[in-house]
Amino acid sequence: MTIADTARQARRASTRLAAAGAEQKNAALTAIRDALRENSEAIIQANSEDIAQAQRDNLAKPLLKRLKFDAAKIDEACAGLDSLIALADPVGKTLAATELDAGLELYKVTCPIGVIGVIFESRPDALVQISSLCLKSGNAVLLKGGSEAARTNRILAETITRAAASAKLPDGWLGLLETRADVAGMLALDEDIDLIIPRGSNEFVRHIMDNTRIPVLGHADGICHVYVDAAADTEMAVKVAADSKCQYVAVCNAAETLLVHRDIAADFLPAFKTRMDARGVELRGCAKTAGIIACAAAGEQDWRTEYLDNILAVRVVDSLDAAVEHINTYGSAHTDAIVTADRRAAMRFMDTVDSADVFWNASTRFSDGFRYGLGAEVGISTNKIHARGPVGMEGLLIYQWRLIGSGHIAADYTGPDAKSFTHKTLQKDWES
Amino acid sequence: MTIADTARQARRASTRLAAAGAEQKNAALTAIRDALRENSEAIIQANSEDIAQAQRDNLAKPLLKRLKFDAAKIDEACAGLDSLIALADPVGKTLAATELDAGLELYKVTCPIGVIGVIFESRPDALVQISSLCLKSGNAVLLKGGSEAARTNRILAETITRAAASAKLPDGWLGLLETRADVAGMLALDEDIDLIIPRGSNEFVRHIMDNTRIPVLGHADGICHVYVDAAADTEMAVKVAADSKCQYVAVCNAAETLLVHRDIAADFLPAFKTRMDARGVELRGCAKTAGIIACAAAGEQDWRTEYLDNILAVRVVDSLDAAVEHINTYGSAHTDAIVTADRRAAMRFMDTVDSADVFWNASTRFSDGFRYGLGAEVGISTNKIHARGPVGMEGLLIYQWRLIGSGHIAADYTGPDAKSFTHKTLQKDWES
Repeated sequence: MTIADTARQARRASTRLAAAGAEQKNAALTAIRDALRENSEAIIQANSEDIAQAQRDNLAKPLLKRLKFDAAKIDEACAGLDSLIALADPVGKTLAATELDAGLELYKVTCPIGVIGVIFESRPDALVQISSLCLKSGNAVLLKGGSEAARTNRILAETITRAAASAKLPDGWLGLLETRADVAGMLALDEDIDLIIPRGSNEFVRHIMDNTRIPVLGHADGICHVYVDAAADTEMAVKVAADSKCQYVAVCNAAETLLVHRDIAADFLPAFKTRMDARGVELRGCAKTAGIIACAAAGEQDWRTEYLDNILAVRVVDSLDAAVEHINTYGSAHTDAIVTADRRAAMRFMDTVDSADVFWNASTRFSDGFRYGLGAEVGISTNKIHARGPVGMEGLLIYQWRLIGSGHIAADYTGPDAKSFTHKTLQKDWES
Repeated sequence: MTIADTARQARRASTRLAAAGAEQKNAALTAIRDALRENSEAIIQANSEDIAQAQRDNLAKPLLKRLKFDAAKIDEACAGLDSLIALADPVGKTLAATELDAGLELYKVTCPIGVIGVIFESRPDALVQISSLCLKSGNAVLLKGGSEAARTNRILAETITRAAASAKLPDGWLGLLETRADVAGMLALDEDIDLIIPRGSNEFVRHIMDNTRIPVLGHADGICHVYVDAAADTEMAVKVAADSKCQYVAVCNAAETLLVHRDIAADFLPAFKTRMDARGVELRGCAKTAGIIACAAAGEQDWRTEYLDNILAVRVVDSLDAAVEHINTYGSAHTDAIVTADRRAAMRFMDTVDSADVFWNASTRFSDGFRYGLGAEVGISTNKIHARGPVGMEGLLIYQWRLIGSGHIAADYTGPDAKSFTHKTLQKDWES
């Protein structure tokens, strides 16, 4: 089967999956959970073959760790399925109900988006998580995992597909892609794929965004800022900035640039440098920063760099507005924080920083679907439409307008004897 | 100024406009309304020059009519501004509030998208409507109107800009583009334009969609269907199908294909043909249709054609599922209706037709922002993300996550002594 066939089959399956009720979808999720348990030996065996191969190929340690899918990971995946089963059906919820006229009622009802294409790295647990999120939200899914995890992904996809079929889910709702050519092929299928979610490195995500007309949900860069305002408590500022930079440097919500108001710089920077020295973080500062603490020189290029490492760019700014201007110019509209005791300054910062997540006296590292309480995270989006910041299952949904009449026609609402619309808000669900 | 400069200036203005309060925005809208009244003579004069030129250029009658911007149109525009002023500020609404932990509160707050690019046809009233909708929702806007309306658009944009400046709106929040080259330039500015809304012909919208990486809100085709189910009331079916086809043939929500269940075809089709003959509508039918009524032959190409004329394709289908399959294959995911007395059939139709608007016993012509009670319509979208179907001001909004802590850091929530998140839903607004 070509990738176009797989996508076409997913499109067909998606319309049937959209109509599947909560019971059927939960039965499928339960069957998947049980099948993962029953097949655990074979899954672990396939995974250990992937790992052995990866070791022969000298895969880097962190990637090897991500690749591992053992009994503990299977337990985690099953627990994730249990919490998904416990969730209310997100499809078919009435978002708005309006009487247009007597007996003519309009409902805005949640529904799945359709066919989701997901491209992810080596972690096989992502395959289970994403396919089950898509199932619960009624979406068909095309998955492409890392080639290092090919054996694990194949047995997981087979296990999930077979279990779902036992609950009579339509064939083809889950398609597993295995080659790079498949990914390239997928990007051209804007007729049959509605949304692409790429998880991976900046370059990879950027490549996807640049090479498809399909909407992409995700983020390329994560150039996050902490701005230490004139009215900041120095100790709190050191704590929040240090956590934003150091708590985990290799992730998109770690701070890459620190902005410091000139009135607090002489107080704050020395204390902060002591902390950074202790954590082994290299500071690269502007000229004003270098006038206060010893540091390497930072320039234009640093403001645009996502280090993902123990390096932090530092710039002294003349005002809150200058900080905002810097963030809106060089940032990636991901997550930016202000530390200040001045409520008005905080409000102005949040009103004018054009980022998905704006924080006041809190670490940028909180920007995460689990920490936000969204449940499983679909991804983090720096898009300006549809879904922004950490995205939970909600990001896999859209709505449909459903109008129910009894032979109503538009001609009756035009001309000299036109009937009027009532446009009355109804307090009822669409199926009632 | 180049188009890139105009867009950059709009981007700058957008962050300030995002922070503008309801009072300031309403003051600007009021000033715009008053200025339109005060300048009405000059505006009408400019418009009559456009019209004179268009007459010399032999512009088609319907286009001439759309081009007209007289005293009545100015009154309409002012009334539109009044109702916009009366609306609550759509920005800063709390969509969700969650306590992550004691003193750490997360708010999901509505905000403008940023910079909207709008390309519209000859109607100058669209310029007033769209720019005021953008203002109310806090968005900067780049507008390109039809060249026939150049003089009218210029004086309207000047009037609006000057009035808004008197209410201290940031310079550059409204940019008027005047040439085709500007449109091409605009499509490349994905750094500074967040969303493009094209209003115009299918080919034009398709051209825009095919030539930009900026998200486009709109629809190219409107191939809408009416499906007459086996359990339909014949009289109601004739009425709904006739209205869907004939009430206004030149619009996107007019029906282009009629699907008829084989069990009702012999009853329904002759009655329907009588009605269509009276309305001067040509029917193009499949072989089964032609076996029942006299009609031209329809083929594959007809199922894909948006006639926008007094022509209707007709196909007899074997089942509801075959009708749905036809719609999902050939339709444009715009608006599709079923006529039936069978509730289960209607539910199945609405659950499986993958269109923005699905109607039961109502004309497809109701698919419209005004009829839906959405207020001014931004456009009709056949996208699968962000906004679907008729889109009101809501489509110009997105949200921002705002986290308020008191020095909270992520490190406290990991490791052996990790604090737990409370994830408690809060019943409060973010500014309270």
